[in-house]
Amino acid sequence: MASRFLELDYASALASAVGAAHGLEPAEIQAAQPAVASAIERIENERGSGQHRYRDLPDDKAMIAEIKKTVKRRSPGVENLVVLGIGGSALGNISLQSALNPPYYNLLPAAKRGGPRLFVVDNVDPVQIGALLDLLGPSLKKTLFNVISKSGETAETASQFLIVRDLLARKLGKKKLARNILCTTDPAEGVLRQVADAEGYETLPVPPGVGGRFSVLSAVGLFSAAMCGIRVDRLMQGARAMSKSAAEKRVERNPAAMLALLLHAFYVRGKRMHVMMPYSHQLNDMADWWRQLWAESLGKDQNEHGQPTTIGPTPIRALGATDQHSQVQLYREGPNDKVFVFLEVVKFDRDVKVPKDKAMPDALKYLQGTTLGNLLNAEKAGTEFALVKSRRPCMTIRFPAISEETVGQFIMLWEAATSIAGCLFGINPYDQPAVQLGKDMTYALLGKKGYEQHAAEFRAYEGKRAKARV
Amino acid sequence: MASRFLELDYASALASAVGAAHGLEPAEIQAAQPAVASAIERIENERGSGQHRYRDLPDDKAMIAEIKKTVKRRSPGVENLVVLGIGGSALGNISLQSALNPPYYNLLPAAKRGGPRLFVVDNVDPVQIGALLDLLGPSLKKTLFNVISKSGETAETASQFLIVRDLLARKLGKKKLARNILCTTDPAEGVLRQVADAEGYETLPVPPGVGGRFSVLSAVGLFSAAMCGIRVDRLMQGARAMSKSAAEKRVERNPAAMLALLLHAFYVRGKRMHVMMPYSHQLNDMADWWRQLWAESLGKDQNEHGQPTTIGPTPIRALGATDQHSQVQLYREGPNDKVFVFLEVVKFDRDVKVPKDKAMPDALKYLQGTTLGNLLNAEKAGTEFALVKSRRPCMTIRFPAISEETVGQFIMLWEAATSIAGCLFGINPYDQPAVQLGKDMTYALLGKKGYEQHAAEFRAYEGKRAKARV
Repeated sequence: MASRFLELDYASALASAVGAAHGLEPAEIQAAQPAVASAIERIENERGSGQHRYRDLPDDKAMIAEIKKTVKRRSPGVENLVVLGIGGSALGNISLQSALNPPYYNLLPAAKRGGPRLFVVDNVDPVQIGALLDLLGPSLKKTLFNVISKSGETAETASQFLIVRDLLARKLGKKKLARNILCTTDPAEGVLRQVADAEGYETLPVPPGVGGRFSVLSAVGLFSAAMCGIRVDRLMQGARAMSKSAAEKRVERNPAAMLALLLHAFYVRGKRMHVMMPYSHQLNDMADWWRQLWAESLGKDQNEHGQPTTIGPTPIRALGATDQHSQVQLYREGPNDKVFVFLEVVKFDRDVKVPKDKAMPDALKYLQGTTLGNLLNAEKAGTEFALVKSRRPCMTIRFPAISEETVGQFIMLWEAATSIAGCLFGINPYDQPAVQLGKDMTYALLGKKGYEQHAAEFRAYEGKRAKARV
Repeated sequence: MASRFLELDYASALASAVGAAHGLEPAEIQAAQPAVASAIERIENERGSGQHRYRDLPDDKAMIAEIKKTVKRRSPGVENLVVLGIGGSALGNISLQSALNPPYYNLLPAAKRGGPRLFVVDNVDPVQIGALLDLLGPSLKKTLFNVISKSGETAETASQFLIVRDLLARKLGKKKLARNILCTTDPAEGVLRQVADAEGYETLPVPPGVGGRFSVLSAVGLFSAAMCGIRVDRLMQGARAMSKSAAEKRVERNPAAMLALLLHAFYVRGKRMHVMMPYSHQLNDMADWWRQLWAESLGKDQNEHGQPTTIGPTPIRALGATDQHSQVQLYREGPNDKVFVFLEVVKFDRDVKVPKDKAMPDALKYLQGTTLGNLLNAEKAGTEFALVKSRRPCMTIRFPAISEETVGQFIMLWEAATSIAGCLFGINPYDQPAVQLGKDMTYALLGKKGYEQHAAEFRAYEGKRAKARV
């Protein structure tokens, strides 16, 4: 991999580091390669017939041009951008913003920001949303709401939308709604499409064939990013480079394939918790984006032929160095049931020197003259050493720096790894059948028409529930 | 439990809900009660000899008076309060703030806040800290830094302190440091105590015998809370009430004991992942505070007699309704290796109505006229139903409302449950021996004197590391 490319370092995942009971032998990795190569071959073939569409997003020049044009037209005068979305319609937006814009972005004066303040409302907490609407009140006119939902029927996003639409209509006038609302939705059908058409809102497309958790590199994730000054071209450039290497059948040249191979192998060996631990505040929300991708894609109780199985690594996010003071005691001494994926940044965008002062106690002398970047990376090295000492397998995804290019690579790295892991596990990584029942019950509880049967089932369940309270 | 008291509802954890293979039989719970009762008896006896000191904090009127007096004296003119701390010196501060002050607190105008803006710097990320210092620059003079470290040797806090001290000295003058720094540290010894005494900083005590993760209800967590307008008396009142019920040997009257009993029993039955899922944005950071408490206290490879064992539930934080769109697919279809603890709020501080409008599509009619609070609680009920359907055991900690009292109860609930669980597992919940090695290696890598042997060990490890990179 070239120097501006992410590097996957798995030396600490090998038996030579953590012992044969917990690490992988090179021969084991070698033996797994034909299965991985055939997964890649299958995926590349299926791409020809229109599957795995997320892989093509970085090449969709027309889409990028449309987003950039829309941003240019809609930016002037916008002081606040509010994304209404949840799950795959929010996690990408949040993580791009954290990774590529300065910390405390919303507290900066306008001149120091690349765009409007950004709020991503990914829940229906009344206290949070009430507070946000109060906060936006004085500048409501200068607030653009980006409503993101493929169907428009997602309860959380729909209720947010109804509240915001009503507020705008009352405060600014019903005829001006289109000035403050932009919808990212299905280009042809669905409830939100219907409302957008009826009320004249501008729209951007949720690309067909791309599921929510694979959609960050479409208008879903890119509109808010571009509005806030993130260079989406470069993001796509990074993603394109990684997509190219994800098609490579020689695993030693394909980091996505190696990642899938390793994590699949560790799962099979009983390490069902996959901990991502970024040593970078900027990458912390990226780990949350990954949580959805990994959990929802691979947690399945049927294989791809519909036969019963039980698959599902549990992704866990931990933050370095912070969680050394919270989770590492467990990670070293608890059951050896985890594999650790560190994210390391070689060169931070800026660094802060720890100053020297002879008046300070000798015990702090070792810190003086170093930088926070050095300290953070030393903590990562020290923690990895300690985990390896306790025979816990680790690997590192190394960012030469955090930039649009490397973040684009990172996104595609995991998306492609997810597809390959799906093949290795023999499951369909693109569906999420188990999510529906909770939604249906919510509909039933709120009295939605057509859910009377579910409501009856809920009443029956409530009726026979034990009373067990303290 | 009275109506203003938290309620633990475990009906969905019983065999009658999720089946005998995954749920507990009432007889099983009954059979576990003598062990729990004797754990409680032991703890209450040990309290008499000065152990479990955190339990006494709510009764320490002198401590609360000192904190309040300090807040009164130090508040005037302070626009920013910055906590420098990590782990137990940060998580409590963050979670109290999120739970009890309005969302978007730092973006509110001063008149709408109960105190200064609050920044808790719990890491040494150079990009984050650099950005924060830039942000504070114009109001540095009006910024109070609360440095929290018992010893002062925690590398992260010490380096933050050195940077801030230097910045203040350069910008405002070395003689005025004491105006902008307040240390929460050991009352008698340690590096930070030494510097504070030499430079005349005011200090608040880290109470002796209270470990970091049990320290939120001391000056560690309470100073920043009180500075930002949180009523610490009421917090303590809630904690005191829960501490009282935690001494009760009849488990059916002791929610902390029941919690420990249930989670211990599920761990023993193979459910090693304990997922806390608050259906409230305000309680989300509380779940992060709990992650440290649960993981670091119970993740141990020796029992209390020094014999080898392997204990360690992995605490996982998930946010409702948000993570329904991220984790619930896995939670329902993946391995049945988790137990779920929902946090539910009966009455939110405010609610937001979803307005009615006949122009909106029929498919959204069920939402119109309801409130976000209703929707959120319906989603919780729907998700619990769906998990129970998949035979995943669940329980709910129900907040009548989020207030200082109930948050105080919640903190003491989990602290006391941790002590009881420690007894049931037969381990010492108050130490964290495995954390030291990573620290030592960090020292070694930064050239600290006395760590030459560790440095040599690290070089040897590096030398024999395989090269395995993609």
